[in-house]
Formats: sequence, C-alpha cells, structure tokens
Amino acid sequence: MIDKLIEKIIEMQNPTCVGLDTDFGYLPEEMREGVSCFAEAAARITEFNKNIIDGVCDVAPSVKVQIAYYEMYGHEGVKAFYDTVEYARGKGLVVIADCKRNDIGSTASCYSKAYLGETALGGKALRAFPADMLTVNGYLGTDGIKPFVEDIVAHDKSIFALVKTSNPSSGEFQNLKLENGEYVYERMGSLVEEWGKDTVGRYGYSEVGAVVGATHPEEAKNLRKRLKNTFFLIPGYGAQGGNAQMLKVCFDGRGLGGVVNNSRGIICAYKKPEYAGKNYFEAARAACVAMQRDIASVLGKMEV
Amino acid sequence: MIDKLIEKIIEMQNPTCVGLDTDFGYLPEEMREGVSCFAEAAARITEFNKNIIDGVCDVAPSVKVQIAYYEMYGHEGVKAFYDTVEYARGKGLVVIADCKRNDIGSTASCYSKAYLGETALGGKALRAFPADMLTVNGYLGTDGIKPFVEDIVAHDKSIFALVKTSNPSSGEFQNLKLENGEYVYERMGSLVEEWGKDTVGRYGYSEVGAVVGATHPEEAKNLRKRLKNTFFLIPGYGAQGGNAQMLKVCFDGRGLGGVVNNSRGIICAYKKPEYAGKNYFEAARAACVAMQRDIASVLGKMEV
Repeated sequence: MIDKLIEKIIEMQNPTCVGLDTDFGYLPEEMREGVSCFAEAAARITEFNKNIIDGVCDVAPSVKVQIAYYEMYGHEGVKAFYDTVEYARGKGLVVIADCKRNDIGSTASCYSKAYLGETALGGKALRAFPADMLTVNGYLGTDGIKPFVEDIVAHDKSIFALVKTSNPSSGEFQNLKLENGEYVYERMGSLVEEWGKDTVGRYGYSEVGAVVGATHPEEAKNLRKRLKNTFFLIPGYGAQGGNAQMLKVCFDGRGLGGVVNNSRGIICAYKKPEYAGKNYFEAARAACVAMQRDIASVLGKMEV
Repeated sequence: MIDKLIEKIIEMQNPTCVGLDTDFGYLPEEMREGVSCFAEAAARITEFNKNIIDGVCDVAPSVKVQIAYYEMYGHEGVKAFYDTVEYARGKGLVVIADCKRNDIGSTASCYSKAYLGETALGGKALRAFPADMLTVNGYLGTDGIKPFVEDIVAHDKSIFALVKTSNPSSGEFQNLKLENGEYVYERMGSLVEEWGKDTVGRYGYSEVGAVVGATHPEEAKNLRKRLKNTFFLIPGYGAQGGNAQMLKVCFDGRGLGGVVNNSRGIICAYKKPEYAGKNYFEAARAACVAMQRDIASVLGKMEV
C-alpha cells in the first residue's frame, strides 16, 4: 500500500494527510444544535467528515482518522469511525487508522484483524474497520508487531510505528541515551527498519513506516539519514508548531519519504479569517491547497 | 479506585483478575452455531461474558476486558465491550479496560474521557465506556499521561502503564541498558512511580500502576523493590507460562501489591479434563477458586 500512497503523492504533488480528529466541538454551531446523545453526535460527525472528504479527495492523497475522537462517543462514535473509513476509501483516499495499537502477539493479532486483516466468522472473512494503514506502538518488541506485518503482506497494507513523537515531552523517554551511545528513538527506528526489510516497494520504502514529528527537526533529520527504507508519517505541522521548512529534513532528494498530517489546520480552517465566506468543506479544500503550496515551495517538484 | 480493589482482594483473599479476552472461538460450539455476522457474534460473546461474570463475581475481585477481542467484531463488538464493562460493574467487580491507549496530550484526553472520564454533550456529562481502570502505554512521556491522571483524580479511577510486559520478546526493547546503567523498563517504572506520587492511597499504593509480567520474575522482583508505591497488574499466569511461585516476587510483606490476570485459564477452563461435566461458567468459577488456592499457597494470608 506504500507504493499506492507514494504514487498518489507524486500525482497530486502533495504529501498531505488530512487528519480527521473530528471532535464534536469542531463542527459548525448549526450542526451541533439539538444534539444530546452519542448517536446524534456520531451522525453529525459522520456528515461533517463526508463533506470534508468530498472537499479534499482530489487535492489530498490520504486521510488519517484518529480513533480517540470517535471512542469518546461510545460505540456509536466507533460506528462513525467505520463509516468515515469506508467513505474515504470509496473516494480513493489512502486511509490511515490512527489507533497506536499495541499488545502481546495473540492480542496484537486481534487488532490486526480489526484494522488490516479479516475476522473469520461462519465461513466468511469479514472486515471490521477496513483501513489501508494503521499506526502502532512498538514498546512490546518484535512479537507484538509480527501479526501486523503478516497482515501487511497478506492484504497489501502498511503500518507506522511510533519512533519520535511530536509532543513536547516526547524526549523524556524517547531521547534517553543507551549505553552504546544510541538514543532510545534511534533504537526504535532501527527496529522499525528491520521489521519492514522484506516489504520494500518500488520507491525504496517499506510497508513498515515510522511516526516522526515535524516539531523535532533535529531528530527527524537524523532518522531520515539512518532509516533509508522507512517512510515517515509526520504529525505536528500547523497547530502543533511545525512548518514546511522544519519538515524538509524528513524527505529524500526526490522530495519523497513522508506524508505530513494536518488536522485542525484543515478541518477547522473555516474558523480562520482568511477563509471567511467559505463553508467548512470549502475552507478545508482551500487549506489543503495552501498546504500543498507551502510544502512544495520548500520541497520542489517530487519526481522519480 | 486502587483502595477499593485492594479491599476486595483482602476480603476475598484473592488477587485475581478474570481476563475477558473473549475470542468468539472460545465459546462452546452450541453458542457459535448459525452465527455469520458481527452483531450475532457480539450478542453471543456478551451472553458468554455475562454468565462468566455471574459465575466469578463473588470469588474474584476484578475483571480485565481486553478490547482487541471486541474491536475485531467491528462496532457491534465494541458494543459488546461496553455491555460487558457495564454488567461487570453492576455486579460490583472492579473493571479494568485493557486498551493500552497512548497518544499526545490532546488525543490522550479523548481516550481518557472515553474510558475514565466524561464526554460533555448538550449540557450533559456522558460516559462512553465507564471502566474503573485503564491500561496505557507511556512511550510518549508525561504529557501523554497527564490527561489520564487528571481524570483519575476527578473521577476516582486508576491506570496501569506498561513497564515490563509478559511476551517473549519484551526484553528486546524494554531490557536495553541506558548509559546511566538503568534498564529502559526501570526508567519507565520510575516515570510511573513519579506519575502516581500524588495519588497514594491508604495501603501505600498509588492510582498509577504498572503492568509487570509474571513471566519475567527477575525483572518483577527488581521492580517491586524499586517502586514502593506502584501497584502491579500482572499478566502471564497460566497459558503464558507464569505460575504462583514466579509471581510471589511481585507482592510485598503483607501479600499485597498486585492483581494477577488469567484469561484463557479461566474462560476456557471448561475445555480442560479436570472440569469435565461442568458448563463454561461453572468451570470458570472452579478455575478461579483453584487459582485463589494456588496463589494463597505461596503468598499466605493477605492482611494489613
């Protein structure tokens, strides 16, 4: 699936991922009126997401759906997550389920079935939340990641494991130094490169990517140099403080190597003065185009 | 909530947690017949869980509901997770949602609302999956844990963060040595102790516990010595290879300090020859009692 994502990025000249971290409070006031239960909130969130997806699907290659923002509305919210994933895939977007799942092997296998693989039932192979890519957390080591890699191979999917996250205190743990001189995040990065080594696609990137925050350019630069075959999912652009100049280091000489997520900067763009007069999905589309130009001004033309 | 759990453990003289990792395949054949969609599977899983809960609720203080086994049946499965959590709480069990959630602060806050706190909607405070305790993963550092700690204080809840997990390859990352001579899992343990320091209850344990596998007794012993105020959630007993003798090191001089999870050993006990003639919930109850005796034979009487 990484090849498909890279192809779409080149085709659109846009390494952008639209983050559907759709808190109910992000919806325009008129969409929130009269809502007082999870099922109603979930329906409005789904409607909002579908309109955003319609607005961005021909200018952005991918969406990232952050499941925490759906779980907080109960199983009805989780249904909205499903509906959003399905709708986005139907529109040809590469869909990243941002769930940061992790557990021991037997349990990781269940998560993998849920988001990447299949659940067998009554002789049928059913798909619970059929995403294209999934974020995971590698704290448990190889046997907690192996089930995902198996489904990647069987079903043409990808994962991104947390390496250097975008939050302010990520260094507290991730930048601890090991006795061999490596940092913890470097070691995790090497594990990720290792997990992906048998799945390298035609652009030189594997199906096992790394989450690397735009907000930590020094570490990102270091990781780009160390992890030749690892594609980056890059959060932190926009509201979290990352900008195009900071994330240039995540890309290779061809302008490839990562996809940059922006959530609030796109789905809440309608609240910004520069998009006054546009509705929320028109504003989201315009913000996507602006982000494409901003990144292209730094990266230049992406080509192979 | 940790005080309530410890009180129930003392009252029942049983530090057992019944793991409801209810794969559909674990159900007796007659309960699986004719099921070919997620909604039907979810209904049977819920029925199975409720009967198990009825069977164990007066001999075990807590249950741990592993959400991966529900997510694989879609949003209908997640509804079964909710129903199971609700039913177990109604029966007075301390309910641990085993979700190993983790993200940056703003997103962690959504997860916390979902499992520990409240979601505000139309002037009401609603609860999505109202558990008593939640497992989390601290790879992102303090600002990814803070939202959970705030809800712990506001709503009398607890969390358990992964420190030394029970899986075979946990050492690959967790037993890396830092330049100061500490192991990665020791450093994570110290962070956990720090995160909980303002929430120590009347038995000397805080609301921020640690997941420490029974399958790694050397590390468990080391952690018990280092983390005086940290209560342990101990997976790995039974099917994963841990036994009572191995997990003795997790407990303090009073026989307190941890709760031991057993999943397949209890919910699939009906398949074992020694429980022949019992149905699945009678077998689960008998396995709980046997586990209580096994652990008590090593720990002696728990008292304060």
